[in-house]
Amino acid sequence: MQIKAIQIAQWVDGKIIRGEENTLIRSVNSIENAKEGDLVFIRDKKYEPFLSNTNASAVLIAEEPTLPLPETLVCIIVKNPEIAFIQILQKFGIEQQPFLPGGIHPTAIIAENVQLGEGVTIGPYVFIGKNTRIDKNTIVFPNVYIGDNCQIGENNCFFPNVTIRENTIIGSHCIIHAGVCIGTDGFGFVFDGNEWIKVPQIGRVVIGDNVEIGSNTCIDRATFGETRIGTGTKIDNLVQIGHNVKIGENCAIAATTGIAGSAVIGNGVRIGAGSGINGHITIGNNVTIGAWSGVTKSVEDGSIVSGFPAVDHSRAKRILVAQQYVPELMKKVKDLEARIQKLENNCV
Amino acid sequence: MQIKAIQIAQWVDGKIIRGEENTLIRSVNSIENAKEGDLVFIRDKKYEPFLSNTNASAVLIAEEPTLPLPETLVCIIVKNPEIAFIQILQKFGIEQQPFLPGGIHPTAIIAENVQLGEGVTIGPYVFIGKNTRIDKNTIVFPNVYIGDNCQIGENNCFFPNVTIRENTIIGSHCIIHAGVCIGTDGFGFVFDGNEWIKVPQIGRVVIGDNVEIGSNTCIDRATFGETRIGTGTKIDNLVQIGHNVKIGENCAIAATTGIAGSAVIGNGVRIGAGSGINGHITIGNNVTIGAWSGVTKSVEDGSIVSGFPAVDHSRAKRILVAQQYVPELMKKVKDLEARIQKLENNCV
Amino acid sequence: MQIKAIQIAQWVDGKIIRGEENTLIRSVNSIENAKEGDLVFIRDKKYEPFLSNTNASAVLIAEEPTLPLPETLVCIIVKNPEIAFIQILQKFGIEQQPFLPGGIHPTAIIAENVQLGEGVTIGPYVFIGKNTRIDKNTIVFPNVYIGDNCQIGENNCFFPNVTIRENTIIGSHCIIHAGVCIGTDGFGFVFDGNEWIKVPQIGRVVIGDNVEIGSNTCIDRATFGETRIGTGTKIDNLVQIGHNVKIGENCAIAATTGIAGSAVIGNGVRIGAGSGINGHITIGNNVTIGAWSGVTKSVEDGSIVSGFPAVDHSRAKRILVAQQYVPELMKKVKDLEARIQKLENNCV
Repeated sequence: MQIKAIQIAQWVDGKIIRGEENTLIRSVNSIENAKEGDLVFIRDKKYEPFLSNTNASAVLIAEEPTLPLPETLVCIIVKNPEIAFIQILQKFGIEQQPFLPGGIHPTAIIAENVQLGEGVTIGPYVFIGKNTRIDKNTIVFPNVYIGDNCQIGENNCFFPNVTIRENTIIGSHCIIHAGVCIGTDGFGFVFDGNEWIKVPQIGRVVIGDNVEIGSNTCIDRATFGETRIGTGTKIDNLVQIGHNVKIGENCAIAATTGIAGSAVIGNGVRIGAGSGINGHITIGNNVTIGAWSGVTKSVEDGSIVSGFPAVDHSRAKRILVAQQYVPELMKKVKDLEARIQKLENNCV
Repeated sequence: MQIKAIQIAQWVDGKIIRGEENTLIRSVNSIENAKEGDLVFIRDKKYEPFLSNTNASAVLIAEEPTLPLPETLVCIIVKNPEIAFIQILQKFGIEQQPFLPGGIHPTAIIAENVQLGEGVTIGPYVFIGKNTRIDKNTIVFPNVYIGDNCQIGENNCFFPNVTIRENTIIGSHCIIHAGVCIGTDGFGFVFDGNEWIKVPQIGRVVIGDNVEIGSNTCIDRATFGETRIGTGTKIDNLVQIGHNVKIGENCAIAATTGIAGSAVIGNGVRIGAGSGINGHITIGNNVTIGAWSGVTKSVEDGSIVSGFPAVDHSRAKRILVAQQYVPELMKKVKDLEARIQKLENNCV
Repeated sequence: MQIKAIQIAQWVDGKIIRGEENTLIRSVNSIENAKEGDLVFIRDKKYEPFLSNTNASAVLIAEEPTLPLPETLVCIIVKNPEIAFIQILQKFGIEQQPFLPGGIHPTAIIAENVQLGEGVTIGPYVFIGKNTRIDKNTIVFPNVYIGDNCQIGENNCFFPNVTIRENTIIGSHCIIHAGVCIGTDGFGFVFDGNEWIKVPQIGRVVIGDNVEIGSNTCIDRATFGETRIGTGTKIDNLVQIGHNVKIGENCAIAATTGIAGSAVIGNGVRIGAGSGINGHITIGNNVTIGAWSGVTKSVEDGSIVSGFPAVDHSRAKRILVAQQYVPELMKKVKDLEARIQKLENNCV
């Protein structure tokens, strides 16, 4: 497959501002690995220096480059280079494939009263509990366990070794990566003076549409009621989501973050990697939480916070910088004390 | 099923101090979701405001409420409302069910010389290695692997995709959640100047009774001897427990905590989420460690510590608060210096 | 099996400096559990006090002990006691066994065009995708999933419930512990103003030889190109390695660490537990990163860093100590201010 640069520009509503519009593009690549015939993109201006010695034949870019570029490099201006690039990947047929033969594998264990929609793929050694419903075109990889009474929408993809416990509800177009555990009992115990008594965890997990959940992430079932993950939310690997947490729509939660029980997270919230969110607090809509933050109190809509305890991000940066100079501050104070002592001796 | 409030009060040794004792209770619920006929509970006084507009018909509560309540709400005073609530859940038959048909599934691979007690349930696609013993009524969900020479007590529940490596010993009445790995080799290597040489990890893991272990938690086998988890200890999701760690009885360890090799944890220790415990240190009995703490040194019995490095909790709170004001402290010191300079100019 | 101490000394090129060289050694053990007939080792001088009341019959040690020892204890001086100990373990035949019967289990699902080398062991309920190649003597435990088009070298051991996604390349002599996920999609999304658009993750993971990866660790596939783990690198449990990360040779990465996308880690790097490494930064060769560090910027070859943000370790220690005294510093500054005020009142 080879496509003229001008054709590619038309696909993504772009404009060629430099280079030969009949240049042939044969594939797509990253800047570092690109060779002749490849199309690349740069997300923003700061990556422009990487273009100076690329072998790529064309680049998607948001604004006219200001640095000198290889002579033959075609520049296609588009509004959002990354999204344009994704669209071109699809045109080239370079898409991720689920790599599993279709149909219900004869070794899958399907309990009584299970409803499987048209085009559902169930791989080998999958277990599906009774009264569970899985809608059309959902793909379930080998060694997945889906418990009783689950409702699973269409066009989902569940990778291997996923565990989905009983009564879970999942929307459509979700991707659940390998090793994820959904519906594990929440961590609820009461100490009776002698030992921990288990609080039955009889709620469930409800997940919206277009949710993606990274490998080995855990989402606990509610004590009562529901733990909820809203439509469009993306969760990275090794994230812990406690019982009765409610997460809104279109959030992005980076790896190794922990969200304690009954926290409420709004829509459009972005949480950096390695963060911790306290239980029973509320994070407003469109909040951004920096990586490695410990959020101890509720946060207003639209805030940008970081640090531990998390505060306004610009304040947090000042604090973090200042804290690096405490040793010098101590020395300074000691020196000042000596000077004061001297003044006191002289003046009194 | 509908039960009079007076009957419920008798079940849990409670006393009705308000409302009609013949009120019919049909189910249990959380305060937020309660409807007429539901019984709810509040853990302590601070949740009392939530009662003011509940639709619940009765509440379990530890002391007489002081705020105005819905007219028909029956108040049942009990010593520990949460434990009473759990007892009532059981009376109502609202218990978590393991949802697996009994018996040994024909697809389970049971190696030679395995002993299975009466009433043991082994799900599909389970592997049980040779010379392993599993006692009565233990339930093993699909896709679990149990290695050779394990000794597993009675009435345990192992959820799907759990891996239990060879020579592990587990008591009775334990719950091991999905994705847990027990008996993985400890992280033991020696650098010989050129490369890391693996130290064989030939010890084992020994777990007591009534232990619960959360999803995707890892407990490493000992180099020699034993990694031990004491009876009654509860461990949350995504916790790392290194080789040769000894954890006492009735501890509670919250999610995403890491305990490094050879640490010794006493009885009744509570560890907040996201904490790290250094290797080769000793945490005394009944210690409480705040969330997100880094414990670098041994801690005395009964201490409450937090922070990084973890120190006495009230001290740690003072430090944490003070650290937020380092920018102002710097400015203040700068101002003082100017004033001293001026004094020096004037006085000398 | 019983071996004279003198024979053991010869095995490891050691020298008996104390005790009866014909003492019979029957096994090896840890100092704490040792009984008569056992050989133990101490890694360095600080463990010498543990020898004073050991029941062991012989000890491997790097230099002549200075404390009083049990009368009959044989001391064998060797260059590296831990490595010598590992060699002796092997001589005694005390080696970790993979505990799986050889051959291809009839329940394993082997897709078309799979190549399995001589002596490969494939356990029950394993899935191997099409066009995958596994070389001789590699052992694959039950419930492992290996996707399409993988290339797996020889003498590897994959423990249960591991997921290896399509197109992964793994060298030889690697140990992949239970629950590991390799080749999960990287966490790549673009926000288009309304929702997150998935960036296809069409790269792969490439792992060298002699790599060990701990339980439930996640290694994401590259967006384009490769996520790479170099030969001889050892990774502990519950570690997150983002897309396009490059890790060099002979690194050691402790548990619950997270390495964000596109970070580049040199050779011989040691990363303490619970650390976070920012994306798109470079960690030089032979860098040591202390436990619980947050590395925000690139680090030069040979550096030792710690803290958050990570700085030179000796500096970081000073900062950490000084930060503990901010409350006192505040009080001191307040006192000084009063003294200055007084001076000002007197002097002006």
